Amino acid sequence: MAKKKIRVGLIGHQFMGVAHSNAYRNAGMWYDLPVEIEMKCVCAKDTPERLEAFAHRYGWQETEADWKKLVSRDDIDLISVATPGFLHKEMVIEAAKNNKHILCEKPLANNYADACDMLKAVEGKSLVHACGFSYRFTPATALAKKLIADGKLGTIYHVHARYAQDWMVDPKAAMVWRLQKELAGSGSLGDICSHSIDMSRFMTGAEITSLVANCKTLVKQRPLSADDPDGPQGEVTVDDVAQVLCEYDNGATGCFEATRFAGGRKNHNCIEINGSLGSIYWDFEEQNYLEFCDRTLPVELQGFTKINATWDGHPYGGGPWPQGHGIGYADCFVLEVAHLVTAIAKGESFSPSFADGVTCQRVLEAVQESSEQKKWISLL
Amino acid sequence: MAKKKIRVGLIGHQFMGVAHSNAYRNAGMWYDLPVEIEMKCVCAKDTPERLEAFAHRYGWQETEADWKKLVSRDDIDLISVATPGFLHKEMVIEAAKNNKHILCEKPLANNYADACDMLKAVEGKSLVHACGFSYRFTPATALAKKLIADGKLGTIYHVHARYAQDWMVDPKAAMVWRLQKELAGSGSLGDICSHSIDMSRFMTGAEITSLVANCKTLVKQRPLSADDPDGPQGEVTVDDVAQVLCEYDNGATGCFEATRFAGGRKNHNCIEINGSLGSIYWDFEEQNYLEFCDRTLPVELQGFTKINATWDGHPYGGGPWPQGHGIGYADCFVLEVAHLVTAIAKGESFSPSFADGVTCQRVLEAVQESSEQKKWISLL
Amino acid sequence: MAKKKIRVGLIGHQFMGVAHSNAYRNAGMWYDLPVEIEMKCVCAKDTPERLEAFAHRYGWQETEADWKKLVSRDDIDLISVATPGFLHKEMVIEAAKNNKHILCEKPLANNYADACDMLKAVEGKSLVHACGFSYRFTPATALAKKLIADGKLGTIYHVHARYAQDWMVDPKAAMVWRLQKELAGSGSLGDICSHSIDMSRFMTGAEITSLVANCKTLVKQRPLSADDPDGPQGEVTVDDVAQVLCEYDNGATGCFEATRFAGGRKNHNCIEINGSLGSIYWDFEEQNYLEFCDRTLPVELQGFTKINATWDGHPYGGGPWPQGHGIGYADCFVLEVAHLVTAIAKGESFSPSFADGVTCQRVLEAVQESSEQKKWISLL
Amino acid sequence: MAKKKIRVGLIGHQFMGVAHSNAYRNAGMWYDLPVEIEMKCVCAKDTPERLEAFAHRYGWQETEADWKKLVSRDDIDLISVATPGFLHKEMVIEAAKNNKHILCEKPLANNYADACDMLKAVEGKSLVHACGFSYRFTPATALAKKLIADGKLGTIYHVHARYAQDWMVDPKAAMVWRLQKELAGSGSLGDICSHSIDMSRFMTGAEITSLVANCKTLVKQRPLSADDPDGPQGEVTVDDVAQVLCEYDNGATGCFEATRFAGGRKNHNCIEINGSLGSIYWDFEEQNYLEFCDRTLPVELQGFTKINATWDGHPYGGGPWPQGHGIGYADCFVLEVAHLVTAIAKGESFSPSFADGVTCQRVLEAVQESSEQKKWISLL
Repeated sequence: MAKKKIRVGLIGHQFMGVAHSNAYRNAGMWYDLPVEIEMKCVCAKDTPERLEAFAHRYGWQETEADWKKLVSRDDIDLISVATPGFLHKEMVIEAAKNNKHILCEKPLANNYADACDMLKAVEGKSLVHACGFSYRFTPATALAKKLIADGKLGTIYHVHARYAQDWMVDPKAAMVWRLQKELAGSGSLGDICSHSIDMSRFMTGAEITSLVANCKTLVKQRPLSADDPDGPQGEVTVDDVAQVLCEYDNGATGCFEATRFAGGRKNHNCIEINGSLGSIYWDFEEQNYLEFCDRTLPVELQGFTKINATWDGHPYGGGPWPQGHGIGYADCFVLEVAHLVTAIAKGESFSPSFADGVTCQRVLEAVQESSEQKKWISLL
Repeated sequence: MAKKKIRVGLIGHQFMGVAHSNAYRNAGMWYDLPVEIEMKCVCAKDTPERLEAFAHRYGWQETEADWKKLVSRDDIDLISVATPGFLHKEMVIEAAKNNKHILCEKPLANNYADACDMLKAVEGKSLVHACGFSYRFTPATALAKKLIADGKLGTIYHVHARYAQDWMVDPKAAMVWRLQKELAGSGSLGDICSHSIDMSRFMTGAEITSLVANCKTLVKQRPLSADDPDGPQGEVTVDDVAQVLCEYDNGATGCFEATRFAGGRKNHNCIEINGSLGSIYWDFEEQNYLEFCDRTLPVELQGFTKINATWDGHPYGGGPWPQGHGIGYADCFVLEVAHLVTAIAKGESFSPSFADGVTCQRVLEAVQESSEQKKWISLL
Repeated sequence: MAKKKIRVGLIGHQFMGVAHSNAYRNAGMWYDLPVEIEMKCVCAKDTPERLEAFAHRYGWQETEADWKKLVSRDDIDLISVATPGFLHKEMVIEAAKNNKHILCEKPLANNYADACDMLKAVEGKSLVHACGFSYRFTPATALAKKLIADGKLGTIYHVHARYAQDWMVDPKAAMVWRLQKELAGSGSLGDICSHSIDMSRFMTGAEITSLVANCKTLVKQRPLSADDPDGPQGEVTVDDVAQVLCEYDNGATGCFEATRFAGGRKNHNCIEINGSLGSIYWDFEEQNYLEFCDRTLPVELQGFTKINATWDGHPYGGGPWPQGHGIGYADCFVLEVAHLVTAIAKGESFSPSFADGVTCQRVLEAVQESSEQKKWISLL
Repeated sequence: MAKKKIRVGLIGHQFMGVAHSNAYRNAGMWYDLPVEIEMKCVCAKDTPERLEAFAHRYGWQETEADWKKLVSRDDIDLISVATPGFLHKEMVIEAAKNNKHILCEKPLANNYADACDMLKAVEGKSLVHACGFSYRFTPATALAKKLIADGKLGTIYHVHARYAQDWMVDPKAAMVWRLQKELAGSGSLGDICSHSIDMSRFMTGAEITSLVANCKTLVKQRPLSADDPDGPQGEVTVDDVAQVLCEYDNGATGCFEATRFAGGRKNHNCIEINGSLGSIYWDFEEQNYLEFCDRTLPVELQGFTKINATWDGHPYGGGPWPQGHGIGYADCFVLEVAHLVTAIAKGESFSPSFADGVTCQRVLEAVQESSEQKKWISLL
């Protein structure tokens, strides 16, 4: 008997648009899903030829130039929003009006108020909403969450996270939309620190109650064109580095740094969590491994154990391959989509939802406020 | 204008059948190919229902129960052989008779004579033949090859490779086809040491001229059923560990170990090559990195540099993602297939070809001969 | 011709007393010094028998029960203060009155005012004063400083340091002097964060101009006796974890965390510094290595190079052994003492001096003030 | 009450002479010994001035030009032989005649016959003999031995060891005594492979029963003077790389490589041992850590645990420092000497003894024989 179909419409065809396309294309190949994914239509701002080429390449059946038409089509069940942050709100609210299930990329919005509006728009409707914190969907991070939930770390003492990249380190690198506040909302903060903040919430289940932060623009002017590094310059209006100290509602403290100026760090998204009974450490640059220190072992055998979290018994079964073969960046999105369409099929809610996106956004906004006002901000 | 199509038939639907399916499904998504891949038909020994389910899941248009019919179909251009080793020869020869392009999994055959017959079958025909040494198709290993070809290592002194897994380490783990000589040809030798041998050839361009080896069965009896570990036992007729010392035609020496009995090593496929000007080290468990020691740097700055080989300027452009995001196990096959269909479209030969498969097979056979006769074997 | 002698008096015979003793005993063995070190006399609060035994074991010629007598002896040139922080001030000031050269352990004092008094006491006198930031004296950290001084990192963007241990992680671990404010001044802050703060100053040459911090006591009550964990409890009056965000006078930002509650981290004293041209990373747990990312290399070869900083041409000649053999914890103190007695012999000042101790102390005090008042503190 | 004294005479004042001197100087400082070590006299081939300077620097009371006089002095209890291999035999036999306890550097001799003669010379005498396999004396290797002895690895399957350095990698590096067979006996084989062979025996308790090997001289001519690299050349008469496959009496197999031509590897002395219940891995370049994979843990938590083997409860109490502070290269010799003089004081035998030196030598000789004759050699 044929499975029920879930018909997807995607908005956006850049980096995240590609990641989503791959996920929809392959989720049903890697995982036994209760539904069949139909890649119905992609919409993006481009020439018809290029959009057609994209659709053909990634497997979308149709193209649509106007996202408003897309989100109101009757033959679409799920809208995937993979556009820059400033566009999220309108698209999501419109999709919600049309009762579409929605996967929206992170950060949910460019500010907290917008994020709240978006959450309000989906609440009370029988639709599933998801915020794209994709790093939750690796076997190693899911294992960390499970160990903590199982009490293996005991009382949580502190969280230490750093997300470091280096693609902006060259002062002559050209201006991009991610460096403009009106388009991106913030810089390293929304782009990557948001992942760390969500990861700490995901793993510990604890919420940030107050924080103090320092956001800084390290290179204030950049060439508008990569081809003319000494030509006209534009102003960078977002943070290049974001540093945060915080308190959690479980009594733990946290320390975060996000930067795109750490030469040699390509996608160094790492987190360490220490508790009374043990510790975990994860670094995306070795994404298939979780390091776990179990303080209940005999003392002489204690240390960080490097667990290749790709065994069948690990969360997500370690991905589609035998243990040790490992998954890559794209596979997090595949797992995310597999879980999302399953939730939709089963009529269950999905985590991370818009509520998670809102909570994260509130933290991001407090970070900006704290940095501007040079003071601690309470989130209570 | 629509691209020419290349129509593929796959034989086998286990581990490698899945890897090939994914590759054919996604190569055109990740890479700009001069042809379009059509997943025409899959053939495997299974119930029609299960084979249908496989076809549907992985994207094959049709199924076929009889591989002989598959390889003689007019609407198939490329045959992918993803079956256990003992079946390769007949399938390949039949496919060659029908002038199909062929991708055959490694090791090419279960013995050298068969491999030679297979090479003979494809020689002189206008078909492209490929042997599936997939680890050649990672950005990091390709970078290593390039550095060596560019002379960055100077005179090559020695190669040290180890391929260690642990899925057989439990003496009560049950019998599988990979432990039976008549099906698999050999054990760790053909399964994984073959990869190391090919990798040393790929990276250095040098050929093994003589060798001495020790192959050993560590657990000689295994339960025939996983459900009854103390029930009827079968004899393991292949090596559990293979160790090899060798000489190369460029004056270098080599040292190899392959084992499936190294507890904690999941897919530890590593190789180090040392030359007069530098060294490289690669380990699949961190597949996106190449470590390179450049002895021409100022002495105080020398050491192994851990290169995240996923930059646009690296071989294969680092895969489809921005630098640092990284690829996984499955992506090697995608790259392999992308190169293969490009070669077919352009009428070029492909590397690694059956000739590489034959050379590797000759080494494998010499390893077995050396181990049985307890003596050095010349390959000249 | 016999070398001039420098006669040393040591106060303290616990952890740091041992480290100093070893250093005085062996500095002349490992390094060609312009003076001979004479281990004249050790003073500590203990029974005469035990103090005698210590002196005999570590090579001190005499013992002295009263430190005031020790620091006023005519036959002592250099006083080494290796006592808990609350005792430093009086001892140092008395030693200075007697015109002794002084090596005082870090942190220099238990508060900033005391540290200033101590500096005042040595200023204007022809004596050499040293503050024991021993981690400056490893080949790898000295290499980092040199690379930065040579401009190899370009404009410094940020410093990220973490000093994590785990010896207090068990909530039932007993009270010690390091957990009492009146004895230790502060907890992880003075004990280990002080090292990180000094290291950032040492490597970059930049000064902290403002900061915000969060210090926290994670386990507020501890058993007074290790033998009776559920018996009488004492109050922990220092921080268990200290987290700091800061600004430097060169425009860089900093992020520090110090904790003794990170299960599995034994002496994880690490620092990363990122600049426009490169980055360095050092971790005491691999103390002989410096990781350096040189962004002026060809892009395809960039990454962190793991430099075994023990070559003859490295700072300090890599210690007394051939490259790669490596030094241990104790050897930092040996190098420190070797440099100190050389400075004394040559009539030169020593770095880190009391001025460095004072600067560090001012930062520590600002950290405490910031944490208590929950606000940014300016150090200008 | 004063401890009994053990009076030491040292022959040799190069690299190993320094290592021994430091050990005798400091063993009593770091460890509670039942005897007091008296550094009586050092003997070496040098000018009287330089030998005096050495004695003064390292703490020897007297010097002696003629080793024969030294070994026959009544006021010497223990002779330490730290000369090149070709001198060991005569010195040891003469010392034995004089009933001295003896510590002789490894390899015990330049050939098996000499080693046997040396063992014969000490047998039946009431003297303690020791062969200087110093790497046995690190907390991490001792922990590995203990884990294996305790059955934590189960049935041993195989040993994989590599000892790689790079100080000879430059073809223009000058001739030294270690490259001349008549002085050094062999090259990388005796110098470093001997350590790996002994380590495998130490850790597993198993003996090599047969082997096949390939030893090779990679650079056959070298300048006689470092100052004139293109001047007169000398012939290298030892192996630059030694590779060995072997069988053990417990059914395990082994694989060894030793080389001084691995650019970037400074003192990469590593060993992995795999058994049915677990694995250990040790690398001198992180000498304070032992990696241990315990297959009896729940599967989802298995992996290599990186144990900082410097806790009080670890073998040797982790050295003299708190856990995590770590020891360096020199400290292995200190531990060795501490154990040796304790054995002498207690009238116990010492391990590794000359018998271990002989067993190792027999393996080394078999390696050379196998390499020359290109065949397997039985050691039964």
